[in-house]
Amino acid sequence: MASSASSSTAPASNAIAVKPGKPRVVIIGCGFGGLEAAKALSHAEVEIVVIDRTNHHLFQPLLYQVATAGLPAPAIAGPIRHILRKQIAKGNLTVLMGEVSSIDAASSCVVLDDGEHIHFDHLVLAAGATHSYFGRDDWAKYAPGLKTLGDAFSIRRRVLTAFERAERESDPVKREPWLTFAVVGAGPTGVEMAGTLAEIAQQTLSAEFRRIDSRMARVILLEGAPRVLGTFTEDLSQRAQEQLEMLGAEVLAGAKVTNITAFGIHYDVMEKQADGSNRAVSHFLPTRTVIWAAGVAASPLGKALAKSTGCELDRAGRVVVQPDLTIPGHPNIYVVGDLASAKSYEDPDNPTPVPGVSPGAKQMGRKAAFNILRRLKGQDTLAFRYFDYGSMATIGKRAAVAMIDIPFTKKRIRFSGFAAWLFWLFVHVYFLIGFRNRTVVMMDWAWAYFTSQRHARVFPDPHALEPHTRVVRVDTPE
Amino acid sequence: MASSASSSTAPASNAIAVKPGKPRVVIIGCGFGGLEAAKALSHAEVEIVVIDRTNHHLFQPLLYQVATAGLPAPAIAGPIRHILRKQIAKGNLTVLMGEVSSIDAASSCVVLDDGEHIHFDHLVLAAGATHSYFGRDDWAKYAPGLKTLGDAFSIRRRVLTAFERAERESDPVKREPWLTFAVVGAGPTGVEMAGTLAEIAQQTLSAEFRRIDSRMARVILLEGAPRVLGTFTEDLSQRAQEQLEMLGAEVLAGAKVTNITAFGIHYDVMEKQADGSNRAVSHFLPTRTVIWAAGVAASPLGKALAKSTGCELDRAGRVVVQPDLTIPGHPNIYVVGDLASAKSYEDPDNPTPVPGVSPGAKQMGRKAAFNILRRLKGQDTLAFRYFDYGSMATIGKRAAVAMIDIPFTKKRIRFSGFAAWLFWLFVHVYFLIGFRNRTVVMMDWAWAYFTSQRHARVFPDPHALEPHTRVVRVDTPE
Repeated sequence: MASSASSSTAPASNAIAVKPGKPRVVIIGCGFGGLEAAKALSHAEVEIVVIDRTNHHLFQPLLYQVATAGLPAPAIAGPIRHILRKQIAKGNLTVLMGEVSSIDAASSCVVLDDGEHIHFDHLVLAAGATHSYFGRDDWAKYAPGLKTLGDAFSIRRRVLTAFERAERESDPVKREPWLTFAVVGAGPTGVEMAGTLAEIAQQTLSAEFRRIDSRMARVILLEGAPRVLGTFTEDLSQRAQEQLEMLGAEVLAGAKVTNITAFGIHYDVMEKQADGSNRAVSHFLPTRTVIWAAGVAASPLGKALAKSTGCELDRAGRVVVQPDLTIPGHPNIYVVGDLASAKSYEDPDNPTPVPGVSPGAKQMGRKAAFNILRRLKGQDTLAFRYFDYGSMATIGKRAAVAMIDIPFTKKRIRFSGFAAWLFWLFVHVYFLIGFRNRTVVMMDWAWAYFTSQRHARVFPDPHALEPHTRVVRVDTPE
Repeated sequence: MASSASSSTAPASNAIAVKPGKPRVVIIGCGFGGLEAAKALSHAEVEIVVIDRTNHHLFQPLLYQVATAGLPAPAIAGPIRHILRKQIAKGNLTVLMGEVSSIDAASSCVVLDDGEHIHFDHLVLAAGATHSYFGRDDWAKYAPGLKTLGDAFSIRRRVLTAFERAERESDPVKREPWLTFAVVGAGPTGVEMAGTLAEIAQQTLSAEFRRIDSRMARVILLEGAPRVLGTFTEDLSQRAQEQLEMLGAEVLAGAKVTNITAFGIHYDVMEKQADGSNRAVSHFLPTRTVIWAAGVAASPLGKALAKSTGCELDRAGRVVVQPDLTIPGHPNIYVVGDLASAKSYEDPDNPTPVPGVSPGAKQMGRKAAFNILRRLKGQDTLAFRYFDYGSMATIGKRAAVAMIDIPFTKKRIRFSGFAAWLFWLFVHVYFLIGFRNRTVVMMDWAWAYFTSQRHARVFPDPHALEPHTRVVRVDTPE
């Protein structure tokens, strides 16, 4: 690959002064992939610009804890410029909060929403993913997903408001949908949400209402596939479902959601008919609280890059990258993390797809930084190799499933229950950014474990609530 | 006073079942006054209904810490039903989240926004106060006040976004208003806000930007009166101003705000002319961040009560109460806290007004509960006596002023600086609700003290920002 990058300088109109000869690396998105890339370049003779549309790096694996009032937001989110303050102080890095509106590969520029052009010598695109409602974006307002802090606050407010509304409702027919919680999609996020919601209803709130018994609340996990946690082995799926049911959640597998409204979920289930044939039968589940954990779509910046460079996108909108994580014809443009459709070249003749998990994003971020450094030294870039440590999913208190690779062997062990939960706890607390957050999270969890309490059960006044959850009587449908 | 209350039972249509003979006390608002009243009735043979429009009791004296990213919201706010869970469990109390739309004294009913009627035998109205923009409600969107968690999040987002906007702005003329922070009103809240904002600019953020130096930010405290902290003695005002200036804030006393826009504050100052006369001279301060700490207005429920009972309101909209905290002609309706214009009858011949501070609200709440109990026993109600322990205001790290009454003496001591700050810290942590919150707050503060860091510096993605603070270029005025 020919180098088209490395030593060009910024045009005079550019707001960031560039020292001549110091190539600029622009990183878009400061999730796991972007942050690792920035850190890996900390000692390099480059000028780094990190652009993110929020002011914080988010430890997304624990976002469901913010949504379910177990942790306050600052426990799992840190200001990007604080995390990277040492690089800022030594003049190696600039953080900009802003939204990228387009990428101009021909002139090596990123364009921000206010029109500012930022020149790059190397670009690391790590813009991640967002929810997908499979073309039904009108469902979004009834069924929020869980990707951002804003999403988490919205879910926290809806869940807690639903119990409050139920307490105020004297008509049992109208009360029931407020005490019915549906989670759509039984991947790790959906399983976590369903298990934790069941815990809240069964334990946290159990003695705090007069007119209702929170333990009568139903938590239903709907999944289109035949089993929960489809990326895990069948026995672990089975264990996960048993643990969910023990916590008080219901699992509805093989249920295809056909519509979501303010009043509930319409779904189809294949059912055996009297004549022996299978037929899709439509059902309606009355519920006022739906959480969307089903679809993930790549960031729209994938499309923006394709428009500018002609690079290929896969069906989910992810950018198909080359072995070294660059895109064809642009050896200075890297795509990493959830936005990349990447393969691992541990066996070069038989590359395997990289899953959309945080270790994958972090490893890609580091590899992109590493390849940039190699190119700056005039060396060839290397192919990406993904190290799979295994997978875990937590379900609730003392409940989790895990399949872990034992290092330096080809062995993979599977386990579930309390041991898996302890292991999950250890790994998540360990990887949280910053010493302080780890302490706070551990204290919060120790508290929650022994008291079944969740101390973040507060949300701003209802004035800020979305219209359809405001405390206003709404007639039940039909 | 004749008893018109005590033993009537609820109409059959009422959703809350009432045990015959158990009188119902309805408490509107669960701030300091309402919560104390509910707790003081915990062992009484009454049925209590607490109505609040949020789900939480807020420790308002520390709300500025949430606004300035020093504490996460759950550290200073607890779910009302969790705080009162023991009374709920023993069947003494019901908590309803909802908004009261009117009070019908003739039929002894409170009407909620969804039309539900809640009968009362005794009513404690503790709905508190809100901001007042002195008839200029159009200023609200440019200058948020600080009364609710929603307000605090909004201020946190605006302040941190302003620094981010400044970092992105290459034109120094357009950048300056983003680095100028104005606080209107130099009561305790305004002084706290100005001192803490100065600390954030001077210390917390000082090494985390590249294009700007956060220490160049200006924090200006505007006050219409001639001095800050007007309810304190003149020497303490002087000390407070000196401490503010030491932290890096500027004090602009005698400045009357005449208009607030998206681009800044217009204000008048009396200035000596060449001919020796004084004349109001108009000024304009370009700023993108204004915080309103100037006006307080009683809750609109004061008006609702006046409409139903003909009770008197003072100029601030507060309900003028009788010595026993009831309103004339309604010996079963009490008004307490910031909504009450009450007097202290320590010396019955020379009653003194009760200030709008949390000890006042708590004492009134307890007295209302006490008088309800006396009436239930057939005894006369007693007049309210306010015990003034003194006043304190914090300014910033190691800076505060205090005037404290020494118990059982007529002596009042005044002090300021580090000793006053330590005392302030001790008192506030002590009064925080719940053991756990105290620990969290102390840990957060110990951390902040030694590192100058503020760990709650996160806010949701800019999509949630109000339109005028979104990251969009806006031309400077004129």
